[in-house]
Amino acid sequence: MSRILDTIESPDQLKNLTHDQLKQLAQEMRERLVETVYGVTGGHFSSNLGTVEIAIALHTVFDSPRDKIIWDVGHQAYPHKMLTGRNKLMHTIRQYGGLAPFLMREESPHDQFGAGHASTSISAALGMAVARDMQGEDYHVVAVIGDGALTGGMALEALNNLGHLGTKMIVLLNDNEMSIYPNVGVVPRLLTRLRTSRTYHRAKGDVVSILQRMPAGDALVELGKRFKDSVKELVIPNMMWEELGLTYLGPIDGHNLADLQETLTLAKQLDRPVLIHAITIKGKGFEPAEAESKTHKWHSVTPKSPGKSDNKPSAPRYQDVFAQTLIRLAEEDERIVGITAAMPDGTSLDQFGKRFPDRMFDVGIAEQHAVTFAAGLAAAGMRPVAAIYSTFLQRAYDQVVHDVAMQNLPVVFAMDRAGIAGNDGRTHHGALDISYLRCVPNMTLMAPKDENELQHMLKTALSLEGPAAIRYPRGNGYGVPLSETFHVIPVGTWELLQEGEDLLILATGYSVYQALEAAKILSKQDGIFATVVNCRFIKPLDEELLQKLVAKHDYLITVEENVRMGGFGSAVLESLADHSMVPSRFVRLGMPDRYVEHGSQEILRKILGLDAEGIAQTARELLYKTTDLRDKTLKDVHQR
Amino acid sequence: MSRILDTIESPDQLKNLTHDQLKQLAQEMRERLVETVYGVTGGHFSSNLGTVEIAIALHTVFDSPRDKIIWDVGHQAYPHKMLTGRNKLMHTIRQYGGLAPFLMREESPHDQFGAGHASTSISAALGMAVARDMQGEDYHVVAVIGDGALTGGMALEALNNLGHLGTKMIVLLNDNEMSIYPNVGVVPRLLTRLRTSRTYHRAKGDVVSILQRMPAGDALVELGKRFKDSVKELVIPNMMWEELGLTYLGPIDGHNLADLQETLTLAKQLDRPVLIHAITIKGKGFEPAEAESKTHKWHSVTPKSPGKSDNKPSAPRYQDVFAQTLIRLAEEDERIVGITAAMPDGTSLDQFGKRFPDRMFDVGIAEQHAVTFAAGLAAAGMRPVAAIYSTFLQRAYDQVVHDVAMQNLPVVFAMDRAGIAGNDGRTHHGALDISYLRCVPNMTLMAPKDENELQHMLKTALSLEGPAAIRYPRGNGYGVPLSETFHVIPVGTWELLQEGEDLLILATGYSVYQALEAAKILSKQDGIFATVVNCRFIKPLDEELLQKLVAKHDYLITVEENVRMGGFGSAVLESLADHSMVPSRFVRLGMPDRYVEHGSQEILRKILGLDAEGIAQTARELLYKTTDLRDKTLKDVHQR
Repeated sequence: MSRILDTIESPDQLKNLTHDQLKQLAQEMRERLVETVYGVTGGHFSSNLGTVEIAIALHTVFDSPRDKIIWDVGHQAYPHKMLTGRNKLMHTIRQYGGLAPFLMREESPHDQFGAGHASTSISAALGMAVARDMQGEDYHVVAVIGDGALTGGMALEALNNLGHLGTKMIVLLNDNEMSIYPNVGVVPRLLTRLRTSRTYHRAKGDVVSILQRMPAGDALVELGKRFKDSVKELVIPNMMWEELGLTYLGPIDGHNLADLQETLTLAKQLDRPVLIHAITIKGKGFEPAEAESKTHKWHSVTPKSPGKSDNKPSAPRYQDVFAQTLIRLAEEDERIVGITAAMPDGTSLDQFGKRFPDRMFDVGIAEQHAVTFAAGLAAAGMRPVAAIYSTFLQRAYDQVVHDVAMQNLPVVFAMDRAGIAGNDGRTHHGALDISYLRCVPNMTLMAPKDENELQHMLKTALSLEGPAAIRYPRGNGYGVPLSETFHVIPVGTWELLQEGEDLLILATGYSVYQALEAAKILSKQDGIFATVVNCRFIKPLDEELLQKLVAKHDYLITVEENVRMGGFGSAVLESLADHSMVPSRFVRLGMPDRYVEHGSQEILRKILGLDAEGIAQTARELLYKTTDLRDKTLKDVHQR
Repeated sequence: MSRILDTIESPDQLKNLTHDQLKQLAQEMRERLVETVYGVTGGHFSSNLGTVEIAIALHTVFDSPRDKIIWDVGHQAYPHKMLTGRNKLMHTIRQYGGLAPFLMREESPHDQFGAGHASTSISAALGMAVARDMQGEDYHVVAVIGDGALTGGMALEALNNLGHLGTKMIVLLNDNEMSIYPNVGVVPRLLTRLRTSRTYHRAKGDVVSILQRMPAGDALVELGKRFKDSVKELVIPNMMWEELGLTYLGPIDGHNLADLQETLTLAKQLDRPVLIHAITIKGKGFEPAEAESKTHKWHSVTPKSPGKSDNKPSAPRYQDVFAQTLIRLAEEDERIVGITAAMPDGTSLDQFGKRFPDRMFDVGIAEQHAVTFAAGLAAAGMRPVAAIYSTFLQRAYDQVVHDVAMQNLPVVFAMDRAGIAGNDGRTHHGALDISYLRCVPNMTLMAPKDENELQHMLKTALSLEGPAAIRYPRGNGYGVPLSETFHVIPVGTWELLQEGEDLLILATGYSVYQALEAAKILSKQDGIFATVVNCRFIKPLDEELLQKLVAKHDYLITVEENVRMGGFGSAVLESLADHSMVPSRFVRLGMPDRYVEHGSQEILRKILGLDAEGIAQTARELLYKTTDLRDKTLKDVHQR
């Protein structure tokens, strides 16, 4: 039997389908998710099984792209992709050259606003709704946001502003009682109250069906009355939404297509902000995932039959070495506490939390609070370690600058996913942290060459009296032996790994081994001998060693996984310029001045010229094209 | 009669004073504020008149510094300064070498957490309270936060976490119904409901006096009952706080010392998070300010009899030229809207709002939302201009990177107070924006040399199809003629202002005229002739002109008001290095790698060597000390 799903090229086709056909479609979409995401590509899985009916309901009730549907964090939007002309490409998602892991305005006119970070949808939707009113248009605007994302400060700022403006738009709360991990905080608790209150069951069908028979104005009055009634019974928490200026509809079953369609249709008629509270189950319809819908286990999957992977499965992941080291350090220092913003799994801080349940704090999707909470802990004598991905620390930049560094408080930032993050793509690469942290006074910034050095760096960072940040890559380490004891690395010292007479390569972080490998290639294939330095401190630099080595070499290459603008190479350049020692043959390798696409780390490193072969090739060009270094070819290398 | 205030060296002395003496003290403190802030120094005024009794009550009920009092935004904390040994220095506040404009851990052991940016106190206080519990200590922790700061996302994130953890601490909400400007949003509306509800009047005295006669446990039960009662009467909004996991006490009169002391004493006994809602009046006790407590007028004052000022009062302020230009551009382009995060006055966007009330959006203290709201507007075809101080845009860094620039949306950032901000000091200098924005792909970054060029830049920014940021300084312009019509400046072009054979000075923003003046000094006093360029685009650079000029000069100086790390000078350096053209005689002048203190812009520029004389002096050292540029003297210049 041919699938209905295979015939859907555009969401307007959904309007010709019967209810039964739509239900069939939902079933097929789930099969397709299992077949592609679980089967082939890996990626965000259970949240997408949870949004199948929501996506169908939205695309039957609204006219996308005229009506604007804004998904908060694209990782719940795979079903939306499948209904908007991209089903055939689902097996390419997250792969290099394939569909993007999140929504992307360039990918489809149905993707109104891209998002790989959480909590942005209400702000963006409000902007669009306000624009609509100013332009005299009448399209609908819907933000679809998870309950986890609702704990993010900017979503709360947006709700505050939405209630104030009273703009007509719909917030569809996709409440699966989880962010990636079980939610924490009061907002989630309030949602639980809503789900379990007596109004809950009544609202299902009852309220909605009464209201839909009335004109919008009367419906509102009736709505008001009913809420007033329920107040007296329950001290109802859904008053919260009314207080916030939003008309609350729900909770409804987010897997009941008819309920969703009815509620959305009602909401369309109301000329004010409406919040629809839909309860969904993460992993819905795929038994193993549904059975564990209250864990993070199926949030993201690796392919059932994995193809080529970046991983060297024998080597431990950086994040695990981080967590295990932190545990051992914490056994000896009671002041150490761990903080995560809803990423205990992604940072492996859950391991620390298992060992020290009272010393681990998951503050929810709330990076800003996480950092200043850490500052408060440090000000009172603790040694907080905030484990936040490089890309997410951008959310707390002012808190790093103003609350931590300005007061020189000893907070350690463990920045996972620094550099090329791989398949999660442009929203997730940690491409900027060197640039945005290096300029911050009092900050010590380091990057380990391998997982063993990460251990010593964590020890080092925790020995300092001011802020320190350690950037390390996503994925597995190099499989080097792990020291049993940890030592403090003298701040601002580099490690001279090997000496050669032809070329100086200064590399930092993940790129150090690539540079060593490049040196090997060069000596073997080209008879070029390179000095290679592990520049483990990015701030401060080892200026003494730098000057000594630069004086001995005519050719210099720096390598990093950060944009070239303001990155490690620039730090080297600044220091050399301050001492009038900039060699004329100097290439700074790094990430380009554009957003880098998704793909495996291996492929991206190759494309960007940041793997061993790329570094070696740059060296050849640098050494052999000595006649005119300003020529086009080299410029291409520079800017690659 | 000698003042009680003059005898207070330390807050523990307050405990020996009678109620009448404390009231007398309050009176004296207000006089002192009028005499110093209004009379001599200028600065934050009316909010401090509003916190006199709160400061006295806190320091009589608690034992600072053992108990931790954390003030959100130090500009409400002058009375706290006066009671903690700094009264005699109040006439020096905000002046160079004098008391800091905000709280500062280095200034007093009573300053537990410094803050010039809003909404940080609950996070910091929670960190301290958690640390206390882990350390087995038993001190009290109080966060004092304004109602305006409560609209900031991170304060809401912190409340969410506080309610979840249930940690014993006190949030004292200083509710004056204002941020700097009247508050916007739903949260403030809820507070208004609290203030005007019937429970309000009853609570004054009544609830508190009942509760204080009971042991803490019973008090809570009684509290619960009373709140439950009032629910039925009022659909009470203070349930909101209970839902958030905080015991709500109030509202109380924040100028009634006895009420404050009683309520704080009660709160001390409760072993859980408590919110005390104190109503205050901005400007209290100083008639002209009190009469206008619902305007921003007395928030900040200029000294009644001003001494030396940075201002050239004849020249318009940059912020006014910005607003007037925006008005004129908006008259011709309906798509233009203005956005501010609670700073309509500080950005002069209030002028735009007066002309276009429907096209101006004050979203409250909510920079993150402001930027993504702007992104949403831009995605729907509008031309949003977000006017946010350079230092506050740090709050929305991820939104700039992830929501605006990654999608290449045409949002214009008008960054006021870029560079040296003057008396507001280290929390307010715009010292990092070049570094943190230059690395962002798709961003166009510019800085006008004077107020006239600001006009053309705004026109230029609004003509682009992607994001653009304009950084301009605090204060008055140079008094140059203002063009009647605006033109688009070709992106990435610099302006060659004068040619000389000895030296090349590349300056950006405010520093351009300083460089011109330096050139004048050099030609007159030293016979040195400089080429001076207005580097109005920081990204992209005018690489063609740069290379042409560098080829003709042996000596190069760049000047900017941004930190040297990753700043404009580094951009020039990177570009030259990529073309193997770095001159060996090259000094990058800029702000140092430390937090710069407070003081007038004039003084700070002088100290940092960024005024005309400083630039000239650097030029002399660069040209004359040609024998060994690596010597200590020049290194001092570099790192000054």
